[in-house]
Amino acid sequence: MADNRPIGVFDSGLGGLTVVKALQSLLPSESIMYLGDTARVPYGNKSKKLIESYSTEITAFLSGKGCKVIVVACNTASSQAMGVLQDAFSIPVIGVIEPGVSMAITTSKNGHIGVIGTVATIESNAYETALKNQNENVIVLNQPCPLFVPLVEEGWTTGDVPKLVADTYLKGMNADSVDTIILGCTHYPLLKEIIQSAANNGTTLIDSAEAVAMEVKRVLSKNDLIAENKSTGPLDCYVTDVPLRFEGLARQFLGSNIEHVSTVSIH
Amino acid sequence: MADNRPIGVFDSGLGGLTVVKALQSLLPSESIMYLGDTARVPYGNKSKKLIESYSTEITAFLSGKGCKVIVVACNTASSQAMGVLQDAFSIPVIGVIEPGVSMAITTSKNGHIGVIGTVATIESNAYETALKNQNENVIVLNQPCPLFVPLVEEGWTTGDVPKLVADTYLKGMNADSVDTIILGCTHYPLLKEIIQSAANNGTTLIDSAEAVAMEVKRVLSKNDLIAENKSTGPLDCYVTDVPLRFEGLARQFLGSNIEHVSTVSIH
Repeated sequence: MADNRPIGVFDSGLGGLTVVKALQSLLPSESIMYLGDTARVPYGNKSKKLIESYSTEITAFLSGKGCKVIVVACNTASSQAMGVLQDAFSIPVIGVIEPGVSMAITTSKNGHIGVIGTVATIESNAYETALKNQNENVIVLNQPCPLFVPLVEEGWTTGDVPKLVADTYLKGMNADSVDTIILGCTHYPLLKEIIQSAANNGTTLIDSAEAVAMEVKRVLSKNDLIAENKSTGPLDCYVTDVPLRFEGLARQFLGSNIEHVSTVSIH
Repeated sequence: MADNRPIGVFDSGLGGLTVVKALQSLLPSESIMYLGDTARVPYGNKSKKLIESYSTEITAFLSGKGCKVIVVACNTASSQAMGVLQDAFSIPVIGVIEPGVSMAITTSKNGHIGVIGTVATIESNAYETALKNQNENVIVLNQPCPLFVPLVEEGWTTGDVPKLVADTYLKGMNADSVDTIILGCTHYPLLKEIIQSAANNGTTLIDSAEAVAMEVKRVLSKNDLIAENKSTGPLDCYVTDVPLRFEGLARQFLGSNIEHVSTVSIH
């Protein structure tokens, strides 16, 4: 039987809209409810305790709105809060880490896998732990890239500055013959070209947004939660604050305009 | 009569410690109570309403702790919330904008003054309005520099990347013969050398931290609030979350280690 309840997606800010874009592309009939915690963005420099608390509040909000599954479209929250969320909620909670990890393991030929993300994501070791759990022989190179998010938000996704920054960040991975790099942050798909040009020839970039969309499809099918086939499912968007440059940023991540945005108070 | 109550200083994060450093240098006997709202940093991309609400909560906290004067060591809060704070509290509230503006006006020879800051600070027009209020004939060039804060927090304050970023941001000001630039963000003093090297020869950089310290000294003297002369006043530091890399960042801004840090919940 079809289940037309929405898929709940959240991120600390608007970057998670890259995951919404991937979901819309793979599962066009699904309704999506997105929450961007723009009043408290970024999570990347906050403590585990605070990130767990914020993630629980948001999941309770989306679950209370009738979502059938929750996608944690935020690498920081996925790396810090999956345990408490899966314990506290009965609906499926899907993070962005495991799907990207599985894709990287099957993609890499030499087993040298790079992970780039925020400081919090990298320092959590969540990607390295998940990679080693799937294959203890892989060699993992971690690199925090804290300038990538502000570069994307500044709109500097091409040109000398992002190229020089990417060259600096990827130096170690290139020296170590990494052949697969996980883009461990929802903002990074917008820097794909620059990152590809800074990486060694032949390096494959793993886009977590695409990987998580495939995982959501698998979970919905397995649990008989797929929506009925119709033209296009609606997107309801909530933010906890209307940030500056909101419309431009949203369009940048989603690839289209957001029609309905509501501001909500979460805590 | 001496007044040994502390000076309250707050910022959205740790950048305001550059103001503490300037206060300690100019008024070494004063006790200082600092609050960094690290759980909610940055303010630069938040709405005016939210920034007013956060600033009021923090000022009430510091005022409740017995501070004799409040220094809003945050350009974003100074540009958005001075009105509500001065209306709501009876103790003097000093922002970082007016002192920097007065110094720039007396410094500039050709009346072409540049202002650099976060997106919120620049879009508030607070500096331009204050400059024009003091001298309607000055020509003001505004430039948001959102990459400067993450560059400082990444520790990239020298080298090719910050130089290229600074060159890009300052191009317009240099073409317009700006001879004085206000560093409209507490993080920017750490990029002084790079900004100086990117600016036209002979350009004067106005460090708001130094300017506000002088203004605090003036207000304390005028209101008979100066502390008794003793060796060194203590610094009590509060944060709303213990961020990653806290100690390194604090040392970077303050120039010394922070001895006592407490985590508090504000809202």
